[in-house]
Amino acid sequence: MKLVQSILVAATIVVAAPVHAQFAKPEDAAKYRQSVMFLQGQHAGRINAQLKSDKPDLKAVADNVAILDMTDKLFFAAFTPGSDMVANTRAKPEIWTSQAKFKEYADKLNTEVGRLMTAAKANDLAATRAAFGDVGKVCKGCHDDFRKE
Amino acid sequence: MKLVQSILVAATIVVAAPVHAQFAKPEDAAKYRQSVMFLQGQHAGRINAQLKSDKPDLKAVADNVAILDMTDKLFFAAFTPGSDMVANTRAKPEIWTSQAKFKEYADKLNTEVGRLMTAAKANDLAATRAAFGDVGKVCKGCHDDFRKE
Repeated sequence: MKLVQSILVAATIVVAAPVHAQFAKPEDAAKYRQSVMFLQGQHAGRINAQLKSDKPDLKAVADNVAILDMTDKLFFAAFTPGSDMVANTRAKPEIWTSQAKFKEYADKLNTEVGRLMTAAKANDLAATRAAFGDVGKVCKGCHDDFRKE
Repeated sequence: MKLVQSILVAATIVVAAPVHAQFAKPEDAAKYRQSVMFLQGQHAGRINAQLKSDKPDLKAVADNVAILDMTDKLFFAAFTPGSDMVANTRAKPEIWTSQAKFKEYADKLNTEVGRLMTAAKANDLAATRAAFGDVGKVCKGCHDDFRKE
């Protein structure tokens, strides 16, 4: 235990949290999902830039999709109870009151990102563009329903 | 092209950027690395909580290490030329003037996180704790040398 505690002090990056709690406080949950969404926006932008280019590099697209694929699976869990009340969140209360609908978006996003990955790995440009369009629709739908302006 | 542009408008999450530019502007680079480091801190915290617990779940540790492993490979590229000048960065100018030393930390972090992953996947608690300690040392060393208070 002493070792771990000294690491905790030494690294100055580690937050104390119980094993089963994902976040030490609601503000961390909000910052976490905002961080994830910023990364997703950046990597979606890189995918978009490839698909707009004259010679799209679908290997580069797949590398960026891998990041979306990992972060997608993380950030829906960051809408924790109580984290609707933090300042600076654009999350609508409906996320917490319409959980089934919100979960549908989460599942659909994971499905569509999976399709995007498959298409990019298969080096199929038309399918990659179509799948990216469908990912964008899930983003937009969820933002329209669950994000404040 | 029309399709991709309509996605861009529709999704409202996509930034315009040339194919080979990682970031549309230096502020994005700073926000990107801050987002990544926040996630790393959160997932390091979850690893720490497991390793401090009575019954550490090394599968859960490995899941969190996978996120560190992916983000490690991303964020060193976000210290782009010119992004030392943005407001709200704690990055010291030495990152840009001592690139070889900074790169050494990047490589070491990737190595140590790889060791941590191997240990956790092997379900070897002692090795996992030792490797996590070594990861923490790399974090601390880099923060001491390259991050403002």
